Amino acid sequence: MINITLPDGSVRQYESGVSAMDIAKSISEGLARKVLAAKVNGEVWDASRPITADASLKLLTWDDTDGKSTFWHSSAHLMAEAVESLFPGVKFWVGPALDKGFYYDMDLGDRKITEEDLVAIEKKMAELAKQNNVYIRKEMPKKEAVEYFTEKGDEYKLDLLQNLEDGKITFYSQGGFTDLCRGPHIPATGAIKAIKLTNIAGAYWKGDEKNKQLTRLYGVTFPNQKELDEYIVMLEEAKKRDHRKLGKELGIFTIDDDIGQGLILWMPNGTIIIEELEKLAKETESAAGYKRVVTPHIAKEKLYLTSGHLPYYADSMYPPMEMDGTKYYLKAMNCPHHHKIFDAEPRSYKDLPLRLAEYGTCYRYEQSGELFGLMRVRCLHMNDAHIYCSKEQFAQEFKAVNEMYLKYFKIFGVDKFVMRLSLHDPAKRGQKYIDEPELWEETETMVRKVLIETGTPFVEVHDEAAFYGPKIDVQIWSVIGREFTLATNQVDFAQGRRFNLHYTKSDNTTDTPLIIHRAPLGTHERFIGFLLEHYAGKFPVWLAPLQVKILPISDKFIPYSQEVMAKLVKAGVRVEIDERGEKIGKKIREAELSRVPYMLVIGEKEMNEGKLSVRRQGKGDTGSLSTEEFINNIKEEIAERKA
Amino acid sequence: MINITLPDGSVRQYESGVSAMDIAKSISEGLARKVLAAKVNGEVWDASRPITADASLKLLTWDDTDGKSTFWHSSAHLMAEAVESLFPGVKFWVGPALDKGFYYDMDLGDRKITEEDLVAIEKKMAELAKQNNVYIRKEMPKKEAVEYFTEKGDEYKLDLLQNLEDGKITFYSQGGFTDLCRGPHIPATGAIKAIKLTNIAGAYWKGDEKNKQLTRLYGVTFPNQKELDEYIVMLEEAKKRDHRKLGKELGIFTIDDDIGQGLILWMPNGTIIIEELEKLAKETESAAGYKRVVTPHIAKEKLYLTSGHLPYYADSMYPPMEMDGTKYYLKAMNCPHHHKIFDAEPRSYKDLPLRLAEYGTCYRYEQSGELFGLMRVRCLHMNDAHIYCSKEQFAQEFKAVNEMYLKYFKIFGVDKFVMRLSLHDPAKRGQKYIDEPELWEETETMVRKVLIETGTPFVEVHDEAAFYGPKIDVQIWSVIGREFTLATNQVDFAQGRRFNLHYTKSDNTTDTPLIIHRAPLGTHERFIGFLLEHYAGKFPVWLAPLQVKILPISDKFIPYSQEVMAKLVKAGVRVEIDERGEKIGKKIREAELSRVPYMLVIGEKEMNEGKLSVRRQGKGDTGSLSTEEFINNIKEEIAERKA
Repeated sequence: MINITLPDGSVRQYESGVSAMDIAKSISEGLARKVLAAKVNGEVWDASRPITADASLKLLTWDDTDGKSTFWHSSAHLMAEAVESLFPGVKFWVGPALDKGFYYDMDLGDRKITEEDLVAIEKKMAELAKQNNVYIRKEMPKKEAVEYFTEKGDEYKLDLLQNLEDGKITFYSQGGFTDLCRGPHIPATGAIKAIKLTNIAGAYWKGDEKNKQLTRLYGVTFPNQKELDEYIVMLEEAKKRDHRKLGKELGIFTIDDDIGQGLILWMPNGTIIIEELEKLAKETESAAGYKRVVTPHIAKEKLYLTSGHLPYYADSMYPPMEMDGTKYYLKAMNCPHHHKIFDAEPRSYKDLPLRLAEYGTCYRYEQSGELFGLMRVRCLHMNDAHIYCSKEQFAQEFKAVNEMYLKYFKIFGVDKFVMRLSLHDPAKRGQKYIDEPELWEETETMVRKVLIETGTPFVEVHDEAAFYGPKIDVQIWSVIGREFTLATNQVDFAQGRRFNLHYTKSDNTTDTPLIIHRAPLGTHERFIGFLLEHYAGKFPVWLAPLQVKILPISDKFIPYSQEVMAKLVKAGVRVEIDERGEKIGKKIREAELSRVPYMLVIGEKEMNEGKLSVRRQGKGDTGSLSTEEFINNIKEEIAERKA
Repeated sequence: MINITLPDGSVRQYESGVSAMDIAKSISEGLARKVLAAKVNGEVWDASRPITADASLKLLTWDDTDGKSTFWHSSAHLMAEAVESLFPGVKFWVGPALDKGFYYDMDLGDRKITEEDLVAIEKKMAELAKQNNVYIRKEMPKKEAVEYFTEKGDEYKLDLLQNLEDGKITFYSQGGFTDLCRGPHIPATGAIKAIKLTNIAGAYWKGDEKNKQLTRLYGVTFPNQKELDEYIVMLEEAKKRDHRKLGKELGIFTIDDDIGQGLILWMPNGTIIIEELEKLAKETESAAGYKRVVTPHIAKEKLYLTSGHLPYYADSMYPPMEMDGTKYYLKAMNCPHHHKIFDAEPRSYKDLPLRLAEYGTCYRYEQSGELFGLMRVRCLHMNDAHIYCSKEQFAQEFKAVNEMYLKYFKIFGVDKFVMRLSLHDPAKRGQKYIDEPELWEETETMVRKVLIETGTPFVEVHDEAAFYGPKIDVQIWSVIGREFTLATNQVDFAQGRRFNLHYTKSDNTTDTPLIIHRAPLGTHERFIGFLLEHYAGKFPVWLAPLQVKILPISDKFIPYSQEVMAKLVKAGVRVEIDERGEKIGKKIREAELSRVPYMLVIGEKEMNEGKLSVRRQGKGDTGSLSTEEFINNIKEEIAERKA
């Protein structure tokens, strides 16, 4: 008999050779129907694979990220089966799961795949799925595998085999299709109920443009039609809200190849949003007792050797500048600079907690192929801060940071979010994790406690903590249901020691502070990218680059419009007049399209009565107000940062 | 006869061979007594040197920068004469004039110069000065000069001779001293009335630490004792106000060798000053119709080849980072980035003037030996903006910029300033200067007109314009009379074309905008360094990192003090309470030393009457006010940025 430990800590005994699916059935048939794969000792396995020793087990369903990945990888095999049956002789390279969906790279010889072909492939996939063919895993000696593909004349799979170790080579088959594959897969094709092939693209073999161009087919599948339908609606909405399209239309940002890819130039409208976000952060942080600092964007190599970022993190940093016999690096993170400010003066317990905040600009190297609008960039303006505190102060500080996150979510109307709490593996202390059993125990317990007490939705992830402490990744969903990883919130026992940071305690002994790294608003780049999609460019008034557009019905009303404008400017409102000689209908239409929140129409009646005819973007005429009433209303709306 | 053109444009005729001194005498004996040297065709000459062709002439006195330089260089020769008479066998390297004073590098063998020696040298100099020895210029063939110094065994002067061209070698003698020297010099030693040797330092020969260390003697001289006395007082005051000392004491900034020399880390108090200055700049610029942008700190080599900064300016830039087969440079100026933002959208005459502002951070390479506190740094936060305008808009825009400078000087109590207008030399158009005769004529005339009309003190400097247009350097004096070069204001005809910038005119043709580069508040580094000296760290309330310190007389008054503090915080005032159990006298003394502008003493009487006992830093008790009265007063003082 073997002991199987379930996620809730309970232990069940089974015969050796039992599969995850057997175990699921032993719990409930309903559960078994949902099982897609299983996590055995932290590794994702086929649900049918025999377990022959004591193990921890987590059954994976569509609700688990790993469950979805397995589902999509199996869908890639299903697509390959369909393609092979329609286009015999096709050769396959690799077919991984993506964050959402999957693709498969294939060599179709001279054949070009068309949109019509996609429909045929989808249809064939649905037909094959209905057959509910089982995914069968088979181990094979390397020699035999090489012979198989040599005979088949498949140079792609032979290439893959070169890098595989004998004894670890597996094949998977379903229906009439067999592929070299590490797995795992879902039990059978029948689970794939809804299929959509989304894109055809070219992809150089191994990403090298000197190699042959393969065809890459993208798709996404679901366990039911409803989820696919929702996904398609979301995709269409996301396309309309594409932050690159809106960013250009609204004058938010630009990228110039003479300056460099991934380096955002913030245009005047984008800069207004940046300044409003920084104002929010500064007000919030000032009220929470943070102090601000400003640090340079470069430092000597030595600093990053002390922090441990070099050599480990070198690939993610820009290459060094060599000067005066020293290497200087663009900073990829602000922490070491802040540690130096902590260290610039003698510190006592009276100075703690010391909270140093900076909208610091960091530079990170991302492959040019990975760069994407504001989402993947090389220059990041980060809402950064480091909190230096004693162990006793830690829980309170961490809680305050958590509350700050929640406060921001409320302001931005983020209703769906989850904190992903990454914990360490006690067995890996001293290697993957700093060897401080008590601090791990204390902080993990405390962090979990804060999340529970504040009713914050969170998931726990085993063995994914940072080297120096537990880590929280914050994931949020935009109003159309797309997921964004916003920011991290980390506990750090290690950097304080590496930088030899000290403070004097009340008993005159010294201690090293704990450090909390936090960035609730993430980076301007990613956050404004998120906001563009979230608001579809229709920013709330406090964030809108232009808040009010005055629309005089004719030239005659320009002087009065200017009087109104002067009052608005004095009240700190961002306002313009449309003085063109256009018809009012056209002025309104264009103002609506530009997404300005308020339009003030001024004609004979308004001028005579000293009133404004107020229109709200997307809502039409909202009535008539005096200038003073309108100013009071909009000032309140701005001050309270209303949605 | 030759024609001599004087600065006022008048032309006088003299015999060929006339000297500047002869001409001065022909005008007035009084003037002649003041003449130290002369500018002949833009080159500084001895006043006694014969002029043998038509020339422009400017007589130089102590009031001219070049007059002072000549005076100090002659003083270096006088010091050398004194040293040689006291320490025979001394060998001299070079002895240039400085911005204030002069030095001479010398090899004294094993002899070390002491403070007592300085007194003896000063005394000897005064004695030699009284002899009123004439400085005599003598041309000498290179061969003869080499023989002279070979015989004398002077390897230093032989080294200098190597790089001099035969036919251009001159010697100067006064009294018993002769030196290889390019000149020019003042007429005679008698003009040097007041002498102070200020410092002894070591200096490696040619600045190379592998070479022998020479002795460098620093001194300063004046045409009268009064100016020397004032200078010594100023030096002592400047020492007390040293921005490096105050910067550390007040927690303004720090420098850390692990990050790098010349890279300022702004501490919390310095960051408050930065944010107040940026707030002032943003308000002022917003009211003046500027739009803000944010740009990255790096760009590809190509951008700087387009701008022309590379290869010309490469030595002043950080070395490149090589990545993806491209060189990236840290930006040394913001202009090219702003040009790219101008160019990111199609522009029409309706968009002009477009004023793009950014507190941009630039990186410049300065030799490590040149770095000095906040004054010479490698990372600069610049109050930058670029104004893109048509020729017709230029005068108005330039005037507005000039007014902005004056507005700032008023806020900061800068009473003494001068704008140094650098003009081009028409003969050098097409080489040193862009070949646009009309634009030079127009803009120089217009810039001069604005300066005259606004009553701005300025001097004109011939042949020192930028390549692309006339340039104004702004020099200001701190309250103790030290001079700082603050910022430049430049007109640019060239960059618009280099970047191929265009706008559509009202007639649908296109044109290239003129560009004004301006930075009235200079860089945070230099400006805050200036302010530290100017205010001796006693910042006006609006700039003070801490504005109010509440001093309860005993623990009993802490709760009431906290109530007062809460009201002040709500009013946006930066305030702290001294809650220590110290005597009130000590609390006041320490608060005074920390330079906090207001101290509020709270005891029995204050609490019972609901009043505050208000102390102003350096002025003692200023009476009793209610909390509301005090808040109204300080809010007004802050809002109006009172001195």
